[in-house]
Order: sequence, then structure tokens, then C-alpha cells
Amino acid sequence: MDWGGTMPTHATFLVSAPDQPGLVARLAGFFYELGLNIVDASNHSDAYAEGGLRFAMRLVVDLAALTSPKAAGLLSGNATRRALEEGFAALVTALGGTWSVGYDDVRPRVAILVTKEASCLYDLVLRQRSGELPCEIPIVVSNHATLEPVAEGFRIPFFALPVDAATRPAQEQQILALLAAHHVDLVVLARYMQVLSEGFLAKAPPIINIHHGFLPAFQGARPYHQAHARGVKMIGATAHYATSDLDQGPIIEQDVARVTHGFGPEELARVGRDVERVVLARAVRAHLERRIVVEGRRTILL
Amino acid sequence: MDWGGTMPTHATFLVSAPDQPGLVARLAGFFYELGLNIVDASNHSDAYAEGGLRFAMRLVVDLAALTSPKAAGLLSGNATRRALEEGFAALVTALGGTWSVGYDDVRPRVAILVTKEASCLYDLVLRQRSGELPCEIPIVVSNHATLEPVAEGFRIPFFALPVDAATRPAQEQQILALLAAHHVDLVVLARYMQVLSEGFLAKAPPIINIHHGFLPAFQGARPYHQAHARGVKMIGATAHYATSDLDQGPIIEQDVARVTHGFGPEELARVGRDVERVVLARAVRAHLERRIVVEGRRTILL
Amino acid sequence: MDWGGTMPTHATFLVSAPDQPGLVARLAGFFYELGLNIVDASNHSDAYAEGGLRFAMRLVVDLAALTSPKAAGLLSGNATRRALEEGFAALVTALGGTWSVGYDDVRPRVAILVTKEASCLYDLVLRQRSGELPCEIPIVVSNHATLEPVAEGFRIPFFALPVDAATRPAQEQQILALLAAHHVDLVVLARYMQVLSEGFLAKAPPIINIHHGFLPAFQGARPYHQAHARGVKMIGATAHYATSDLDQGPIIEQDVARVTHGFGPEELARVGRDVERVVLARAVRAHLERRIVVEGRRTILL
Amino acid sequence: MDWGGTMPTHATFLVSAPDQPGLVARLAGFFYELGLNIVDASNHSDAYAEGGLRFAMRLVVDLAALTSPKAAGLLSGNATRRALEEGFAALVTALGGTWSVGYDDVRPRVAILVTKEASCLYDLVLRQRSGELPCEIPIVVSNHATLEPVAEGFRIPFFALPVDAATRPAQEQQILALLAAHHVDLVVLARYMQVLSEGFLAKAPPIINIHHGFLPAFQGARPYHQAHARGVKMIGATAHYATSDLDQGPIIEQDVARVTHGFGPEELARVGRDVERVVLARAVRAHLERRIVVEGRRTILL
Repeated sequence: MDWGGTMPTHATFLVSAPDQPGLVARLAGFFYELGLNIVDASNHSDAYAEGGLRFAMRLVVDLAALTSPKAAGLLSGNATRRALEEGFAALVTALGGTWSVGYDDVRPRVAILVTKEASCLYDLVLRQRSGELPCEIPIVVSNHATLEPVAEGFRIPFFALPVDAATRPAQEQQILALLAAHHVDLVVLARYMQVLSEGFLAKAPPIINIHHGFLPAFQGARPYHQAHARGVKMIGATAHYATSDLDQGPIIEQDVARVTHGFGPEELARVGRDVERVVLARAVRAHLERRIVVEGRRTILL
Repeated sequence: MDWGGTMPTHATFLVSAPDQPGLVARLAGFFYELGLNIVDASNHSDAYAEGGLRFAMRLVVDLAALTSPKAAGLLSGNATRRALEEGFAALVTALGGTWSVGYDDVRPRVAILVTKEASCLYDLVLRQRSGELPCEIPIVVSNHATLEPVAEGFRIPFFALPVDAATRPAQEQQILALLAAHHVDLVVLARYMQVLSEGFLAKAPPIINIHHGFLPAFQGARPYHQAHARGVKMIGATAHYATSDLDQGPIIEQDVARVTHGFGPEELARVGRDVERVVLARAVRAHLERRIVVEGRRTILL
Repeated sequence: MDWGGTMPTHATFLVSAPDQPGLVARLAGFFYELGLNIVDASNHSDAYAEGGLRFAMRLVVDLAALTSPKAAGLLSGNATRRALEEGFAALVTALGGTWSVGYDDVRPRVAILVTKEASCLYDLVLRQRSGELPCEIPIVVSNHATLEPVAEGFRIPFFALPVDAATRPAQEQQILALLAAHHVDLVVLARYMQVLSEGFLAKAPPIINIHHGFLPAFQGARPYHQAHARGVKMIGATAHYATSDLDQGPIIEQDVARVTHGFGPEELARVGRDVERVVLARAVRAHLERRIVVEGRRTILL
Repeated sequence: MDWGGTMPTHATFLVSAPDQPGLVARLAGFFYELGLNIVDASNHSDAYAEGGLRFAMRLVVDLAALTSPKAAGLLSGNATRRALEEGFAALVTALGGTWSVGYDDVRPRVAILVTKEASCLYDLVLRQRSGELPCEIPIVVSNHATLEPVAEGFRIPFFALPVDAATRPAQEQQILALLAAHHVDLVVLARYMQVLSEGFLAKAPPIINIHHGFLPAFQGARPYHQAHARGVKMIGATAHYATSDLDQGPIIEQDVARVTHGFGPEELARVGRDVERVVLARAVRAHLERRIVVEGRRTILL
């Protein structure tokens, strides 16, 4: 939404819980009783979750009235964000669910991991600079030095950490240390051409990867060459959360572009890069806006 | 959602009201207190409505618990659909809003108006027969006899009402009489190549039209010839509610297909027909599922 | 192209040969010397063919001047189509290539094989009736009786040939006999849910199949259920020539439609049906217009 | 095509002529007789041109054999590009046509005109740097200083030439002088928010403009606001040659992206920017590859 002049401060709550009567009313009612206005809300009951019907809801709440006497009274006189979170946590716990929250005035910090290809890196940084991606980009990390000038051109600290089979454990420790030191909330693999270990994935923040193929087709290496050999008529790209099963993580966004028999692998790659950038940017934006609920191998986008 | 065996009976409520704090909580709370489960809900606050922020919500409610003592008690002991509607009406009136309701076991009745082109007629009837369009199609009306065999083949009563400038008022009265006699809830103009008078539009049920152009480009007659002369690279179709401003009604759905310089007007029409059918079917389905709120010249799809 | 009143008779030649200097000039020159006008021509040199660069060309020739003294003289005085073909064959043989030809006034005969789903059958027949698919449809064959009324409604002979593992060889012989008796040039599997034996494929005319998935993803059975379980964000369909490797034949056409987390397998199937129909119709049309050259596992569309 | 190691030098000829028998054979024959191999060829007969059927052909010729005795003999012993061009010109003149030629080793020089928006500028430069756009970018010209750091970051000379109604004639003269001094072959208006005078257009090289709307809808200013007010469900962009009729020049490329009722004008602009960049890049690439023939208000893309 376009808010004209000053943007009020919003909190975005994301909830997932076993489906049960009254969920919408009770979650919305929590904020209603506090006098906080819900400026956007959406929910979904997923009939295909393992373990039965599963409910997810996203609520964007205007915090302007948080310091009203009414809210303060209900929050034991202490109208802080922490008190609000504690109250909400109590409700969600009673419903058997999980939740998270983000605030408009606290920008998530995103680390970008790259190898040699500049296209996605430029794209993400330019979108962040233009305000399309509401985040900070404190660091760019690569296993090569190729893209140092790009990062430096935008005055983003760049770390080149070469890696081979022998040095992988140590290199991953270095990356984890950088992520921790820079308070990174999200890692984006913008054509980072290295497999990450299970140990790394367990310790890192959420990771979004762009796969340059229309998963689940063309898993693994050189997907454009695979696509060419198979003679496909459309080229796709898939953004997904990275998991220890390579190319098997929950899909966030996909798109395709039409190609013809006249396109060789290099031209498929060229067309594919346009798709990759848009798909990756949409996925990162959805994550930053706290719209994504992971449900097994699937994602719900609210 | 796929409900497996028996489908419970659902009511779908559609509400529009000036935005105000607590709307989600109060609307959801109404059903929660009655013990009726909300199986699907979505809402939208429209920042661009004339007259200030406008709220729209769609709630799909499971009626299974309507006859429980709890619900009956709250509805003055009379747990009928009418009582439920009266209770809901009181709430929405208090909020300054408008609303409507539909029930899964009451299928809307759709009249299809055609001229000579069979493509959209076949498509709508086949989708209705396959269950994709949850409605009855009690009549097909045309100003020509061309498509009688198609309607008869599906055993749908067919009325041929020729029209020219002199007979238009009388012919429109005939159509209105047919719509009334057959309890028609929705009229679909499936390539009905006649302008309808303001008087007709005022008395008829809602009317969805398919325009074979990407509105607002190519308004008026022979849009494929216009598109060809202009050398466009994509062909579109637009489904919209008919209003007295020709081709200016609120747009419900649009789509396009890619074309090349090699396509003459006839081939643009061929490609366009594929787009038209899909766009019209999606719009009719959205209307039947009670997903569309008209907001000035725009539609909100919930 | 839109030819206004009478359509002149055209021949469409399709050639494939090892690439070599002068191919365009020599092939076009053959018709130029005869005084036959080339009304459409396109060619492609495929850099990825096995065995080196491979050339393909499609030429649409106006036969009006075939009976001119000039042409007759060059064709040994006998200006027949057969003489034209013999002359062209001699040229292409000298180039080490292969070729085929079709004539506008000889409509290919297409057999449609179905099981129980009506969507693609209706679609193909309606497109044939409207002139979009330049062919005859002499028979519909099924392993079930479900769609008999559809075929009969269009007055197309319908053959129900049930099949199980034990009767497959005999049933396939019956189908082959029907194809031969009705002079079938092309078989379209319009959701024919049976695997065809290698022996059948060897003896049958070319076969186009519609796979209701975005191949090579989701090969095999129940692709919409596979797609749902994997949480994809787009649903596709693939038309390909049937080969003895199931779902591995050369891809002719693909397309996709966007879906969301809210779509269950049944709704994916509904969306998918719209894509299937369009993709299958485009592939059949390209084949009928003699635009497709198969090059290993890929197709060139001219 | 992917040529592996060294790229042979190619010439690309683009021809337009009144349709007549033997055109393909005679044009291809010209190069065949010289012993020059045609590596790519495509042609189109346009049935909708004013003044009768119009033929267009693109031929990509390998120049390797230009210095062979055979070619030299036919070109009066002087096997230069100029001699080749003179020979070709004589043929095309005899056919009543027009033609142009480009060489792989002579990169066209493209000037980019911008105002304040960086998105298209970054995109074009990055594509040029990656090899996607085979051209030089000698200058960036703007009526504001905003984008100087972007151009300077890529070491492209940047000229800021402010303009208002009074200074327009003088400013346009300055731009024309810059274009001439830098030997500019193509001007790209990458969101240059100024109307260019008829006089400027007459003297400048070809100009490609990106319009941030799906022309012919939403001509003129603020197309995203227009699109929002009209409630469209898809957002488009159109690349076209600039002519003195604003937004009426021949369309080269268009594309669209889906939007919903939830998108305000700012978000439509965000989605639109992704479409704009891709559409503009495709149009510029097609021009650089000499694929575009202008036919009245339409373009033929070969």
C-alpha cells in the first residue's frame, strides 16, 4: 500500500497452528481487544499438511495504539513490543502453534553469497537500494574474488573465502562467523556454486537459493545443458529454501520464459538469467515481508 | 479444497464496509460465537477507494453446527439460514456495510447469450458439465439460430430472438422476461454481439462480458483488426461486468498470448479465442464462488 | 495468411540434410527454375545435431504455375505432382537429405485415441470443425465406452476396444487394423491412459501424446499429485511424439499456468486441463502444417 | 549459435522488397555463386503491407570465402566488403528493394538517454558488459545529474543537459552534436522523460523508446496511475521506435506481468520495471542483430 507521507510502524505476525474452530476470530480478537488496528490479514487452511488440517495466518498490525491506556492496561501496564509478543505467544501456545514477528522499523540483514556471476548480485543490490527489498545488505561473501569490484562499487564489505574439498569445513566456519558477527537474518545464494554441508545448514539463518532450472526437472549441475539436450520449449528458474537434500527444499517461487529450437545452451542461459533474477527477487521479498510458511516440502504464501 | 467423500454444506458471505478497527475480529467473531467453523477467509483493505479506506472480506462458513443448541440459542431458538442471515445483516448494518451470501447446495442459474460463435458457449457448458463451474445453465439466448444445435445437443432450451434497431426494445423485454421466468442469477455474454440498453442493464441480473481485446486498448468493434493494424506483439482478452459505458465496466480478469508479425487478423482471432475462453471461464467461476467485490471501476478478487 | 476469396493450392515441402554451402539457394532455385512461387520459407541450421551441423528447411510453394509450359518442359513434359516430387527427390538425394510433402487440398486423416476424459477430445474436434486444424477426423478409438456420446454427437465413428494385460496384443492389432482401414496419417493420444507397445509404435503412423506435466519433471503416473506433493508454483503440459521410451519422446510444445498453495491436486488438474488442450492443439496444428523436424530427442519447429 | 572457440566474421544483410517470384532463390543465389556460405536465413512475405505483398529477408553470411579466387573473380578482382556491398546493392535495386548490412566485427555504437531512473540504464550496461548486447555504449546523456555516478561507475562519459521549454531547441542541438561526434548508430531512450521534437527525430539515428504501458492502452503520462485507476489485472511494457507521433511508433516488443487488486500505483511501477527492462533489452538486441524491418506502423522480426 502507498501510505503517502509518514509510514506508521507496523508489526507483521506470522502464525501456524493445527486448524480448529475460531482461529481467525481469536487471533484477530487478540489485537482488537488491545485496540490495535489490523491493516492487512490473510489466512489459509491447508488440507494437505501431514498430521491433519493446518492453519496459517499473517496479520499486519498498526502499533500506533500500543501505548494507549487500554493496551497498556491489558499488557500489565507495560506497553512494550516485548509485552505484546509475550501476550501473543501465550495465545499461540494455547492453540498449539508457532509464530514469529517482524517490525517495519527493524530491517532484516541479508548476506549475499556469490561465486562469479554478477547478474543476481547486481539485481538484488539495486532492488535494495531502490527500496523494493526492505532490508540491509551488510556483507557479500564469495569463494572467488571476481565480484569484489561490484560489491565495493556499492560500498558493501566483500569477503573472498576460497574453498576446496579439504578446506570446506574451515571455510564454512568462517562464513558462519561472518554471518553471526554481522547479525545476518537471511542468507541468499545468488548463484553460489558450492554445496553447503548439513552442519552449515543447521547453524545458519534461513537460506534462499536460486536454481536455474524448473525444478524438479533438471536437478543438479548444468541445468541449461540438460534442458537443451532434452529439447524443452520453456526455460525456468526456481527459488527455494536450501535444505540438506540438494535441490529438494521447499519451492517459494518459479517462473518460465519461452525458448525455441534455435537457442543453444548459452542462449538458454541468457534467457534463464532474466528469469532467475526476477524469481529470486520475488522470493526474497516474500520472505522479508514475512509471507512464507513452510509446510513440509511445500510453502504457503500469505 | 478436495473434501474426499461427502461435501459439508457451506455458506459464503461477502462483505464490503468502510474500514474501521476490529472488522476482521468482529466478522469472524460473529460465527465463532455461534460455533460455526470458518473454513476459508480472506480480506483486503483498499487504500484507493473513493470516500476513503474500504474493507472487503469473504468468509466461507461450515453450516454443520447451525442446528446445535448453542447456535439456536443465540439465534432466538430458530437455527435457520434466514435467522443466520438476519443476525449477520444486523452486524454489517451496524458497520455501515453491505453483504451477500450464497450456499453450496443452491446452484446459481446462469443464462448464456450468444450470437454465432460457438467457442465460448461450448467451453462454458463443458466446464459446467465437468463440475468446474458450480451452476445451472437453464437457457441459451441468441439473436441468431446458428447455435441452436449446440444448445440442443446439451439439452439446454435455446431461444432465438432476432433484433434490429427497431425491435431492440421489444427484444430486450423478451430477454428480461426469459431471465425472470427462469430465475436467472447471472447473465454471461459469450460473444453476444449486441449493445444492451441502459434500461436492460438496470433491470437484468449481473452481466459478465468477454471483450476480445486487452482493454482499455482496442475498445469497440473488430479489436483483432485494430490490434493487427497497430502491430501489437501480444493478443489479450478481458472479462468485465457490463455497464452502460460500453467496454468500461469493472475488469474481472485478463490474459494475453504472444503473437508475431506473421499473424493476420484471422490468426489473431484464432489465438484470441483460446485466451477468451479461459479468461471468461475464470471470471464466471470467480463470480459463482462469490469472490468479486466491485469497488468503483475496479474489482477486488478475494 | 489471409487469402481473401479463393485459396490457391499450395504444396509444403519439408527437408532435412547435412549442412553444406548453397542449400537455401539450391532448394529455392529448384522451384524458381520451374517458375513456381515460394510463398513462405524458413530454415534452420542446427549446431547441436549428432553427426555435425544439420540443415532443415520448410518451403510452401504455389502450384498455380505447375502446368505452365516452362514447368512442364523441365519436368519431362509431364507437369504432375508426381513429376514435381520426383524432381525434388533427386535434388534432396544428391544432398544426402530426407524430405516429405503435403498438399493443401489433401487433408491429413487424424485418429483420436481417448479413455474417459472429454476435454481434449471436444477441443480437437471443435478446432477441426472451425477450420483451425486442417484435417479429417475419421475415427475416435477408446478403451472405454464413456465418450461414445461425444463422438456420436459429432457423427464421428467411435470404436470401444477394452484392454487388459492379457488382451493388449490383440487390442493393439485391432487398433492398427482400424488405422490402416481408415487411412490414418496421424494418431493423437488425447488422454489415452494406456502404454503402447514397441511393436505398435513401430507399425503405427506418427503419434502425438499430451503429457499432463511439465516434462521432464513428473514423468509417469498422476503428475498432478506429484506436482502438488512437490509444491510447485506452476503447472505445465507437454506435447511430444510418442516413442518406446515412455514420456521421453521429442517435445513439440509446452506451456504452463501459475498456481498457488491453495490448489489441491483436483484444482491443479482443472488448471492443467486448460493448458493441456492448448498445448496439444498447437502441436497437432504444427504437425499438420508440416512444421516439425525431429532431430534426435529434439524438435525443430519451422 | 555457440561457435566454440573463434568466431568467424559474419555479415548480416537485411532486405525489403515488393514480393515477386524467385526472391529467396535470387538473394540466396547471389551469395551461393560467390561461394559464401549462408549460416542463417529467414524471410517473410507480408500480406498486409500498404501497396501490396511485401517481402523481407535476413541473411547471415560467412565472409571466410570472400577472399577466395572465385569470389574475387566475380567481384571484379577486388574482394572487399565494399565490392560485396556494391554487387548486392545492384541486385536489390533491380528488385526494387532496400537493404542494409552489418558486420560482426563492427560493433554498433549506442547512446543511452535517461532522466532519473536507474533501472533500465543499469540493465542495458550490464547486458552490454556481459556480451548479451553486441554494441559499444560511448555516452550516456541526461537532462539531470542524478545518474552520473552510475555512468561514471562503468567509466562511460556522462553528459547532463538540463532542458525546459525555452531551452529545448538548443539542448536538442547539443544532443545531436554529441551523437554525431561519438558516431552513434542507435539511441535508446531508457526512461528519458522528455518529448523529442520532430526536427530532432528527423536528424537523429534510429531511436528505441520504452513505454511503461501496454500500448496502445495508457498512452501519455503516468501510465501506471492510469492502469491502476482502470483496475487492470496485467501490467505491460512496450518497446517501439520513436516517431513524431508520441507513443505511436512501430512496436518492436511487448510483455506483461500479472498483478492483483492489492497493488497500488507504486507497486504496479515496481512490477512494471521488471517488465520494462526485459522488453527494452530484447528490442535493442533485435535491432543490433539487424532483425527488424519496419513496415508502416508494424515491425517484422526476422
